[in-house]
Amino acid sequence: MATKPSIPKGTRDFGPQEMLRRKYIFNTIEKVFQKYGYLPLETPAMENLETLLGKYGLEGDRLIFRVLKRGASLHESLLDPVMNNLVKDAKVTAPTLLLEEELAQVLRFGSFVEDVQQKAADGALRYDLTVPFARYVVQHQHELAFPFKRYQIQPVWRADRPQKGRYREFYQCDADVIGSTSLLNEVELVQLFDEVFTQLGLQVVIKINDRKVLSGIAAVCGQSEKVVDIVTAIDKLDKIGREKVEEEMRAKGVSDAAIQGIAPLFELKGTWKEQRPQLEKWLATSEVAQQGLKDLAFVFDTVGPLKSAALEFDPTLARGLDYYTGAIFEVKAEEGSLQSSICGGGRYDDLTGIFGLPNMSGVGISFGADRIHDVLLELNKFPEDLGSSTRLLFANFGEEEAKRCLQLLRKVRASGIAAELYPDTAKMARQFKYADAKAIPFVAIIGADELKQGIITVKDMKSGEQKAVKEDELIALIT
Amino acid sequence: MATKPSIPKGTRDFGPQEMLRRKYIFNTIEKVFQKYGYLPLETPAMENLETLLGKYGLEGDRLIFRVLKRGASLHESLLDPVMNNLVKDAKVTAPTLLLEEELAQVLRFGSFVEDVQQKAADGALRYDLTVPFARYVVQHQHELAFPFKRYQIQPVWRADRPQKGRYREFYQCDADVIGSTSLLNEVELVQLFDEVFTQLGLQVVIKINDRKVLSGIAAVCGQSEKVVDIVTAIDKLDKIGREKVEEEMRAKGVSDAAIQGIAPLFELKGTWKEQRPQLEKWLATSEVAQQGLKDLAFVFDTVGPLKSAALEFDPTLARGLDYYTGAIFEVKAEEGSLQSSICGGGRYDDLTGIFGLPNMSGVGISFGADRIHDVLLELNKFPEDLGSSTRLLFANFGEEEAKRCLQLLRKVRASGIAAELYPDTAKMARQFKYADAKAIPFVAIIGADELKQGIITVKDMKSGEQKAVKEDELIALIT
Repeated sequence: MATKPSIPKGTRDFGPQEMLRRKYIFNTIEKVFQKYGYLPLETPAMENLETLLGKYGLEGDRLIFRVLKRGASLHESLLDPVMNNLVKDAKVTAPTLLLEEELAQVLRFGSFVEDVQQKAADGALRYDLTVPFARYVVQHQHELAFPFKRYQIQPVWRADRPQKGRYREFYQCDADVIGSTSLLNEVELVQLFDEVFTQLGLQVVIKINDRKVLSGIAAVCGQSEKVVDIVTAIDKLDKIGREKVEEEMRAKGVSDAAIQGIAPLFELKGTWKEQRPQLEKWLATSEVAQQGLKDLAFVFDTVGPLKSAALEFDPTLARGLDYYTGAIFEVKAEEGSLQSSICGGGRYDDLTGIFGLPNMSGVGISFGADRIHDVLLELNKFPEDLGSSTRLLFANFGEEEAKRCLQLLRKVRASGIAAELYPDTAKMARQFKYADAKAIPFVAIIGADELKQGIITVKDMKSGEQKAVKEDELIALIT
Repeated sequence: MATKPSIPKGTRDFGPQEMLRRKYIFNTIEKVFQKYGYLPLETPAMENLETLLGKYGLEGDRLIFRVLKRGASLHESLLDPVMNNLVKDAKVTAPTLLLEEELAQVLRFGSFVEDVQQKAADGALRYDLTVPFARYVVQHQHELAFPFKRYQIQPVWRADRPQKGRYREFYQCDADVIGSTSLLNEVELVQLFDEVFTQLGLQVVIKINDRKVLSGIAAVCGQSEKVVDIVTAIDKLDKIGREKVEEEMRAKGVSDAAIQGIAPLFELKGTWKEQRPQLEKWLATSEVAQQGLKDLAFVFDTVGPLKSAALEFDPTLARGLDYYTGAIFEVKAEEGSLQSSICGGGRYDDLTGIFGLPNMSGVGISFGADRIHDVLLELNKFPEDLGSSTRLLFANFGEEEAKRCLQLLRKVRASGIAAELYPDTAKMARQFKYADAKAIPFVAIIGADELKQGIITVKDMKSGEQKAVKEDELIALIT
C-alpha cells in the first residue's frame, strides 16, 4: 500500500505533546474523584447491542457504532446465513436462482432485516458511560456496597457527523453515586467541580436547576402534558432568544395563555437569594415546584464557600431532560472564547430500572475533557512542566564514551530522573536537534577529553551555558 | 428489558478492586517507560479496515473486529445500497420482484460481496499497537524527532475464541524505538524489563535470541529456503519436545541430513559464555549467524548487572518470526504457576515499509498486563495499600451532625486525604458495613454528644479501638 495512510473521520491520534496535556487533565480529575471517595470502574468498549438500543432515543440508536459478530466478515456472518436460510426455505441450491415468491419474501425488509442485524452485528461500541454503569450495577448488585460511588474515564464512540469540536471517539470522565437520595451528594458534586477547576486554575460558573421546578412551571401554566415541549424550547433561550422560544412553544401547541404564564421566567433577576422568593410566589400552587426550590435551597445553603466557581440558579437549564428527574448541572468557563458547556450532570431517579432494578436513584457529573483541554490551551493555563519527559540526554560520541554514559545513565535513573542516551553516534547538531525537539533541558557531553579527565560537560539547553562537573555533582546540577 | 444484562463473551468489567491492581501495574510500567525517555502516544480504537488488513496474516484478518460504516444499521448501510443498486440495475421498483437474471448476479458472491463489505464495514478495531504505531509514524514522519521513542498503553480487540486467559478485549503496554539501528536500544530494553519487574517485586528470566542466528542455522543445514518451517517447529520445543519437533520438520519436507545438522541446537548447554564458542564453531560458515552472535554478545556484555532478571540466550525462541529480523525477546516469571510468557518483543527492520516509508528499523517490547496481574495476584505480590481509596468515613447521624461533618470533611480533603461523608442517615450497622466493604480504615463518629462536647470519636476499623479527639488532632490520627 503506497497511498498515505490515514485514520477514520472524526477520530484522532494524540501525539506526545497532546498526551502530556491530556494526562494532566485526566490525572487532576481522577485524583479529585479519589479524594471524594469515588472508586474506579472500567467497562468493555463493546456492549451487547441490545444493552444500548433504545436508551438514547431514536437519534441515539442511529449513532451507535455496530460491530460485526465475532469479527467475521460480512460474507460469513451476514450473507452466508441469509443464503442458507433462502436455500433451506426455498429448497433450492445456492447459488442457483430463487423462485420469485421466495425473493419477494427476502426483499421485504422489516423482521427479516432485524433478524439479519441481530445475527450479524450484535456488538455495539460504548455510546456513553452511564448506561454501561447502570448495566454493571444491575449485574453486580449483590457484590456492591451502596451507595456505590464510582468514577470512569474511558472513550466513547458516536457516529455523529464530525465537525469542529465534535469527534466520533472522545473521552468521558464521569463520577456517579447510585443508591442514595440524599442531597448531600449534590452538594458534594458541586464541591468536586470547584476543586477540579481550582486545581486546573480555571474560573467557572456552575449552573444548577431542578427538574421539579420545570415541571412546576408547566403545571402552573396549566400545561403539564406539554412539559417536554416547553422545556425543550426554554432550553434554547441562550441560543435563540426569548421571541424564538415563544414561537417554538406556540408551534408545539402551547396555548398563548400558558406562554404568557411563563413570562416571569424570562424576567427573573438577581442572585439565588433574590430569585427564590419570586419563584416561591410564582409557583406557589405547585407542590412539586416547592419541593424543587427547597432542594435547591439546601444545596445553596450547604455547599459552603467555593474557590473557583460561582454557583448560579438557571431555570432555563434542561440538559437531557429525558432522564434527569432532580438536580441538573452545567458548567461553563468564565474565561476564554468557548461558549458551550464543559461539564454536565444531574439526578435520575430510576437509572437501573431499564435493566430490571427499580428505585435506584443516582446522581452524577461528567467532565468534557476535550473542551477543557481546548479552553486551557487557549488561555495558556497548562503548567510549563507537564512532567514525564526526559530531563537529561547523554550525547553519543562513540562506543567507549557510550559505555561511560551507560554507567552514569544507570545512576541518574536510579535516582528517579528520566534520562536517556542518544543511541547512535550521530553528528552533534543532530543530537542537539533531538534534545530540542523533545524539550530536554540538559545535555551531558562526554567526549574523549571528558573521558580522560573524568568529567562531564553539561549544557543547559535554555541558557546555552556549559559547565564541567564531576560525577557526584551531576544529579544536583540537573535537579 | 427484564432479562439480566450481560456483556459480550470474552470481554470484562473491571470493578474497583481489580482496577486498583491494574492501575498499579500500568502506573509502574508507565513511570519506567517515562524514565527511559519514551513518550506517550494514543491512537484511535478504530482504524480504517485497509490499514489493518493483510498485516497479521490470513488468520489475523479473520480475527479483526469490523465496525459498520458511520454507525448506520445494516438496513441503511448494507441492504439499502444493495437494493438501490438492484433497483437501478434491474430497472424495477423495490420491493417488487427482480428478474431471475439480476438475481443470479446478486447471488454470485466474490466481487459483489467485497464491494458491499468495503462500503458497509470500513472500520476495524485496533488489533495490536504496532501497526497503528507504524501508521502514525508514516503519517507524521515530518513532525517527529528520530529516533522516536514512544510508549502506548491501550486496549486491543481480537475476535478469538474466548478461553481462560484469552480475551477479546485486552490491554497492551508497548514501548518501541524507531529510526535507530543501534544495539544500545536492545540493551536499554533489557534494563527496562529488569527495572519494571524489580519495582513489581517479581523474579523473571529474559530470554533473548537473534533472528540472524536462526537464519544461520537453516543455512548451515543447507535448508535456507525452509527457514520458516524449521524455526516454526523449533519454537515448539518447550511444548512438544525434541522428537515431535523433528517429526514436524520431516513432515514439512526438511531433509534427514538437515534434521541431523540441527542436532547441536538441542544439545547446547550452559550459560551464554559457554554457549557462545559452541555456536561460533557450529555456525562458522554462516556470515549472518556470526553477525547475530556478535550482536547478542554486545547485549550480554553491555547490559550490566540486573536486579530481578536473568538474561538467557534461547536459540529456540522465535516469536512472531514473520516480522522480527534481529533481536527476539521473551520474558517469563520465575515464580508462580504461569508457564507462558508475560512479555515479548524484538527488532523489525522494516516496520513502516508497508505504509510506504522504507528502511526504518524499529525495536520494541510489549508487557502482557493481564498475565502479569494474574501472576502477582497468585503470588500475593500486590502492595497492601494500593492507594486511591477513602481513608476516613464520616458517619451520618442527622442533618445537624452532618453539617459539622461537612466542615471537617472540607478540612481533611484540603490536606489531601481522601474522605467522605455517608450521605444518608442510615443505621450505624449499615454505615460500618459500607466502611468495611470499601476497606476504609477510619470512621469518624459525630453524634449529639460529640457535637455538644466539640469532639470527634474516631474508630480504627482494623483494631476496633475508638478514640475521642479534638478537631486539630484529627488529621494526625488518621495519617
